[in-house]
Amino acid sequence: MQSASNHAHVRIVQSWQNARVKELRTALRKGEKTASGLIALEGQHLVEEAIFSGLRIATVFVRSGSLDILSHLPILDRTAILELPSDIFASAVTTESPQPIAALAEAPAFSLEKILAQPHSLIVVSAGLQDPGNLGTIVRSAEAFGASGIIALPGTVSIWNPKTLRAAAGSAFRLPVVSATTQTIFSALRAKRIRTVATTVDHGTPAQQFDLTQPTAIFIGNEGSGLSPELVQQCDECITIPSPGPVESLNVAIAASILLYETSRQR
Amino acid sequence: MQSASNHAHVRIVQSWQNARVKELRTALRKGEKTASGLIALEGQHLVEEAIFSGLRIATVFVRSGSLDILSHLPILDRTAILELPSDIFASAVTTESPQPIAALAEAPAFSLEKILAQPHSLIVVSAGLQDPGNLGTIVRSAEAFGASGIIALPGTVSIWNPKTLRAAAGSAFRLPVVSATTQTIFSALRAKRIRTVATTVDHGTPAQQFDLTQPTAIFIGNEGSGLSPELVQQCDECITIPSPGPVESLNVAIAASILLYETSRQR
Repeated sequence: MQSASNHAHVRIVQSWQNARVKELRTALRKGEKTASGLIALEGQHLVEEAIFSGLRIATVFVRSGSLDILSHLPILDRTAILELPSDIFASAVTTESPQPIAALAEAPAFSLEKILAQPHSLIVVSAGLQDPGNLGTIVRSAEAFGASGIIALPGTVSIWNPKTLRAAAGSAFRLPVVSATTQTIFSALRAKRIRTVATTVDHGTPAQQFDLTQPTAIFIGNEGSGLSPELVQQCDECITIPSPGPVESLNVAIAASILLYETSRQR
Repeated sequence: MQSASNHAHVRIVQSWQNARVKELRTALRKGEKTASGLIALEGQHLVEEAIFSGLRIATVFVRSGSLDILSHLPILDRTAILELPSDIFASAVTTESPQPIAALAEAPAFSLEKILAQPHSLIVVSAGLQDPGNLGTIVRSAEAFGASGIIALPGTVSIWNPKTLRAAAGSAFRLPVVSATTQTIFSALRAKRIRTVATTVDHGTPAQQFDLTQPTAIFIGNEGSGLSPELVQQCDECITIPSPGPVESLNVAIAASILLYETSRQR
């Protein structure tokens, strides 16, 4: 076991009420940004991805006996490192068999303006996705296929939920995801001449016949009920993924990813 | 509340050690078929899908006070219906906020021969997928895009795991999923002149340039490590999904579903 003395900044915490531990616990439980703008990360992979994506890491939490995990990470001098006894560490994180590292990092600064300013826009609009795994998977696919960003309408699960972050596998630190109201987003997209396209289970133009080379915002609905008729009505066009089988609909993250692939293929 | 007397076959169980309840509990915990060939289903949607897919339902379990859920289901006369007090019901199922219904059903009879006998074969070979959600999502997409079936190589999670079944949304009752060894499957596919295609993160033929109109078996690897070099070596060709972004790989269920979509598009 590597001793704490090799790490100049390591501080051993023995209190369950330590303010930073409480902040980590709360951020992970709520699955949201903290009041001071920090996001909580669990596991080596996400902490690594956050560092490599340029996020400032405020605090690293390591379980006692596992300080050697730090030797793989380029942690800056100003980062506070807290060593926690197993029981305090376990009380703060959400995974059942946690890796021995977690962190609080500054959330990246994303803006709607930045998403809209990109040429050849390809935007995914999430109209109330509730499953964090689905949102995270879409963020990962969106980055892979060169999308400009994701816009989250009211009712969408937080991008900073630990399960969203896990499914996004680091893409959430780089691909802009911003929240906006339905009214704001339709005005903004129309002003930029970005076509609004509703994803529907049937009656839309088949994806491979739909010209996706133009600036496009793809609207995807909630897992249970899809897009509301009001939202479909407001969009310029409808798109459908043709499927010969008897299944009534694809998983929503699959549907969104196929449309992102199809766009990338056409472009 | 509807009374039990409306349902001739309802039997009230008060024992935690009731044999059928124990069988349900074990099947859900292990995520496998029982010794007597039954599979366990949780929730109204899956029980409904199993009935509509023609599976024989051996036993239906309903939580006390929720017998009215049965009025929506075409349950046959020979099906045993057990009414369980809340605590016994909760002890048997795996979901945290369970719907008040579960069932034991006869597993559908699938065979490798049946999968291979279909014309214009499109087969997905899972080489050690470990996440039940990923396997289930692939089964759902495979049925949607007209695949012949799924072959599960050793190390693949069980199709009868409750999380696999939930993600498959009923498709697991209809699309054949069978287990086979690597050696068996390569011999069988070669004998049927079905091309074996390894999915790789790079260096493969780009999906949209790959001729997928011929009989094809698409091999997909484990979430963490992908396909082993030995398996890639044994396959006839490699296929890659081109993605312009900086992400090193797509989620495996997304990758498999995009290749199923691309095949369906080309055909």
